[in-house]
Amino acid sequence: MFRATIRVRSGRREELIEVTREVAHALAAGAANDGIVTLFVPHTTAAVTINENADPDVQHDMVAFLQRLVPSDAGFRHAEGNSDAHIKASLVGPSVQVPWVDGQLGLGRWQGLYFCEFDGPRTRELQVFVG
Amino acid sequence: MFRATIRVRSGRREELIEVTREVAHALAAGAANDGIVTLFVPHTTAAVTINENADPDVQHDMVAFLQRLVPSDAGFRHAEGNSDAHIKASLVGPSVQVPWVDGQLGLGRWQGLYFCEFDGPRTRELQVFVG
Amino acid sequence: MFRATIRVRSGRREELIEVTREVAHALAAGAANDGIVTLFVPHTTAAVTINENADPDVQHDMVAFLQRLVPSDAGFRHAEGNSDAHIKASLVGPSVQVPWVDGQLGLGRWQGLYFCEFDGPRTRELQVFVG
Repeated sequence: MFRATIRVRSGRREELIEVTREVAHALAAGAANDGIVTLFVPHTTAAVTINENADPDVQHDMVAFLQRLVPSDAGFRHAEGNSDAHIKASLVGPSVQVPWVDGQLGLGRWQGLYFCEFDGPRTRELQVFVG
Repeated sequence: MFRATIRVRSGRREELIEVTREVAHALAAGAANDGIVTLFVPHTTAAVTINENADPDVQHDMVAFLQRLVPSDAGFRHAEGNSDAHIKASLVGPSVQVPWVDGQLGLGRWQGLYFCEFDGPRTRELQVFVG
Repeated sequence: MFRATIRVRSGRREELIEVTREVAHALAAGAANDGIVTLFVPHTTAAVTINENADPDVQHDMVAFLQRLVPSDAGFRHAEGNSDAHIKASLVGPSVQVPWVDGQLGLGRWQGLYFCEFDGPRTRELQVFVG
């Protein structure tokens, strides 16, 4: 099984950080030429998704929508004040798959891979597996 | 690695289109008898999910709920007017797994596979992988 | 392909039930030492996710948030009265991946595996696959 870890440094409480290039680079360094890549986030207040990478407004709109959908002050019980981040993490999800075909990420024309920070700024990990 | 592509033609801006039969047919044509199937959507305004296939009202209710949850005119920045579709795509997700056991889809009794169109009508692709 | 089924008994209409130990136990009984684990829910009103397992308030806050987000009486068409559960199932998702490395679940420090019941109480299944 191929395995790599990518470090991600977030700069704000909530943001989407593109990691397409970093993931492709990690795979090119050692993975076989074909397989299904699993991206896994070992954190409970962050997530991973695939979305448009042409217009940064898409990432902005998603962060702003999730802030309105799950306000951080919505009367939660969890005393650390980051229940919103835990909920966003499960809505977006901790894992996603992407094809790796002939040594290339099999993304659609407009797709990019995004690490989703919901309780930063922090230093985070994104794990990359094949097979 | 087994790989197939299914064409999906949506007829409305937003709808769930069942693809269970098409996916099973593609797998039967060439996949080994056992494995985990990954369904992957190479688009940024569509998604894939698994849900009830007995009552079409379930699909209707989901589309209607997502329309209310993420209105298309909610003051987004992205100028193409489809930020709602990008957000719905990440909430539902671009990939899902389903077991393939003894040459059959290992779905629960009421489950069907659904391509989720959020910015149609368009001709779309759903990619099917095993291994 | 390694395959196991875990029985889950929910006690309420909506709750998150931790299954980390049960999944690890099933894997230890027969899976190879390394691989990507796929957890699959063969139901249409339940889901699976990964979230914090230190403070039970996080699970409470997530259930309460989803109840407010998708009220069960929101004027749905589906006559069985559980459209909210079907929608929650697709928002959280029927499958998730987790690494299995050197015979251990590769979870982050605060992560646990959760079966998400949205239309209980019922006896449910969670399927575990590797490879």
